[in-house]
Amino acid sequence: MIENIFIEPTRDKFKAICQRPKKDEKDLESIVSSVFDRVKKEGDKALLDFTEKFDGVSLATVEVSAEDGKNAESAISDSLKLAIGVAKENIEKFHRAQLTSVVDIETMNGVRCQQKSVGIERVGIYIPGGTAPLFSTVLMLAIPAQLAGCQEIVLCSPPDKKGSIHPAIIYTARLCGVDKIYKVGGAQAIAALTLGTETIPSVNKVFGPGNQYVTAAKQFAQKYGVGMDMPAGPSELLVFANETGVPEFIAADLLSQAEHGIDSQVILLATNQTLANEVNNALMNQLEDLPRKDIAREALKNSKTIVITDPNLAFDFINEYGPEHLILACEDYESYIPEITNAGSVFLGNYCPESAGDYASGTNHTLPTDGWAKCYNGVNVDSFSRKITFQEISKQGIQNIGKTVMEMANNEMLVAHAKAVEIRLNVLNTEENG
Amino acid sequence: MIENIFIEPTRDKFKAICQRPKKDEKDLESIVSSVFDRVKKEGDKALLDFTEKFDGVSLATVEVSAEDGKNAESAISDSLKLAIGVAKENIEKFHRAQLTSVVDIETMNGVRCQQKSVGIERVGIYIPGGTAPLFSTVLMLAIPAQLAGCQEIVLCSPPDKKGSIHPAIIYTARLCGVDKIYKVGGAQAIAALTLGTETIPSVNKVFGPGNQYVTAAKQFAQKYGVGMDMPAGPSELLVFANETGVPEFIAADLLSQAEHGIDSQVILLATNQTLANEVNNALMNQLEDLPRKDIAREALKNSKTIVITDPNLAFDFINEYGPEHLILACEDYESYIPEITNAGSVFLGNYCPESAGDYASGTNHTLPTDGWAKCYNGVNVDSFSRKITFQEISKQGIQNIGKTVMEMANNEMLVAHAKAVEIRLNVLNTEENG
Repeated sequence: MIENIFIEPTRDKFKAICQRPKKDEKDLESIVSSVFDRVKKEGDKALLDFTEKFDGVSLATVEVSAEDGKNAESAISDSLKLAIGVAKENIEKFHRAQLTSVVDIETMNGVRCQQKSVGIERVGIYIPGGTAPLFSTVLMLAIPAQLAGCQEIVLCSPPDKKGSIHPAIIYTARLCGVDKIYKVGGAQAIAALTLGTETIPSVNKVFGPGNQYVTAAKQFAQKYGVGMDMPAGPSELLVFANETGVPEFIAADLLSQAEHGIDSQVILLATNQTLANEVNNALMNQLEDLPRKDIAREALKNSKTIVITDPNLAFDFINEYGPEHLILACEDYESYIPEITNAGSVFLGNYCPESAGDYASGTNHTLPTDGWAKCYNGVNVDSFSRKITFQEISKQGIQNIGKTVMEMANNEMLVAHAKAVEIRLNVLNTEENG
Repeated sequence: MIENIFIEPTRDKFKAICQRPKKDEKDLESIVSSVFDRVKKEGDKALLDFTEKFDGVSLATVEVSAEDGKNAESAISDSLKLAIGVAKENIEKFHRAQLTSVVDIETMNGVRCQQKSVGIERVGIYIPGGTAPLFSTVLMLAIPAQLAGCQEIVLCSPPDKKGSIHPAIIYTARLCGVDKIYKVGGAQAIAALTLGTETIPSVNKVFGPGNQYVTAAKQFAQKYGVGMDMPAGPSELLVFANETGVPEFIAADLLSQAEHGIDSQVILLATNQTLANEVNNALMNQLEDLPRKDIAREALKNSKTIVITDPNLAFDFINEYGPEHLILACEDYESYIPEITNAGSVFLGNYCPESAGDYASGTNHTLPTDGWAKCYNGVNVDSFSRKITFQEISKQGIQNIGKTVMEMANNEMLVAHAKAVEIRLNVLNTEENG
């Protein structure tokens, strides 16, 4: 079932095995650019037109009213409310623990340097539409935004054919204190968040998953000075397993990744072939019971099984790949942790399925795909703030540091930089001698 | 001398006043793309060819040898060595204080979540050439890279007509433990850092200032999965001053910004017009003494003087602009600090010139320009690492969190996600009852 098997590949093969499928190189920029142009010119009217065209529904307004909010609350089962409440609490705990205190030190006598976290003023959250309502992503973005101190949080999500956003999305947003919710999707939603319209406020940074048009629009938004969370790609899972792993659990985890979409990336890295075969058998048994088995089966065609006996080499492979999700399906995971340098989020032990982190353990599920874990991390509370630095220099301080600054500035041929110090030192000399 | 004066502008005018000069919309991507292609095909040979073409010097190798390193050391004056040493110590102190400890909490009984900083494995530092040797930027990038635990730090800088990199750059790099130094500049340097050549190792993220080709190349590198520090633009200073400021000091600071380049952005925001006039007079007096007065004079043509009496409104303006550097040229700066939401680095008080932060106070001088301070911060120790999250769930833990995960997964129609939990709970139930 896992189609592509690599037995004991040597290091020189790693790069080729790690290759993600080629992305469609279609140029979306011109399409996105024309969407931005229309939203800039026509505002809400353009949004309503695009919604009619792409979402197949004619709306009077993009706004979600307070009444819609109340209706959403009554449409959600108590058991789901309870689950969302538990997840919210865990995610809040872990993200609150990420808040950093002010860095505040004197580097020299009279030279005080500080670094303070300041929430991004206005942020946008995009939640895709489709059959599955991604209310979990609302938690993952709205909670750290609130904790970081963002002053305005704006959420956009496309309406269904009846003109509604799924009540679980509205309920979760309101639970997280997000009350600016708009029924608009696709590139036009990102354009609205970038440029603002009569109804939708513009923001400083946009977050959230989406299709190729949304991703292209987020990149395009940078031309207008609006930041984005990270480059997005298909979801990925790599399971590292040794003889202490449980084949049935591993198979279930691989399938939970495979059901995401036909482009999901699924990799099993086992330390011996018997284990790989056992996982494979378990996987075939479990597959048939899944409602999304057709999607999973397609995804598994691109999956890979790799057998590497030497754990050091295995972790070299893992770091070369840089998986979004990494499960250490074994009992002795503790010893492997220091080997991990490139991964988004890591799941430790036989009782730690990826789905726990997708929903409720407390970690964020917005993570770097496509090898971006090598240079970027997933969304955390810092993603919603900036670290502003401050320096405060006293008369004594400039006397202590002045000579150093002048020497360096003059050597960089930036004489006015030196003079900005000199003019102060001269005044202080005069004061002292006066 | 400061040419464009705005007296008590109303809030609706802020956006227009804050507008940065339009950037040249010239498409550099095709030029950069062909540079990458040649470096990919020909490696070092392409680098040597481009160096001959663009830097006007024919080299045998791009490598800076250990001997070049020793020569650099003897070419630098003791006073400059001393100054670089002091700056290094301050920058190290402040950036070391930014290191975060591991976040480690139990969100539920048996569900442990951690966040750990892991240094980016390989980083590239680009230092531009030209008359001014920017050894200060070497400090600003190499020091946090070392502190973050980057395993490999690679520095590229273009050679001069004699085929050498300025000894102050080589000296500073080696002082910071960077011994992989290469004589190559422009888009070809970024291509080499992205793709690797026979001599130059590829990296995961590139840092450093540069001209429009370098900036375009850094953006292009993202197509190959290589990250970049931040979008770059002309340097900016906004000075906020009230009647407790010192006109001569303010003028010196504005000139230190203006001498950077003709596209430098210089803004004076004064709470009264008398002060603005005094600064203007001081500025004209000081300008004539500067070696780079022609550059400064050009930059001042685009500068702006704004008078806003109401400090609240003044800080609304500042936050709308989002300056790279912000000086609070006054004695009562303490009360204004909470008003600052968008800025790169802030300089507090009359004895705190921007040049102190450019070189030696301890803060980083690689900062967001062009309004990017609204969503990104400057380079800090985090810029060189990723926060990897870990979750560790015990048998007890999955029993505590399992129901929540399953409820949410089933409501998102992701049944395999729920089953990955269920299969574990079933085994635990059997164990308990068996």
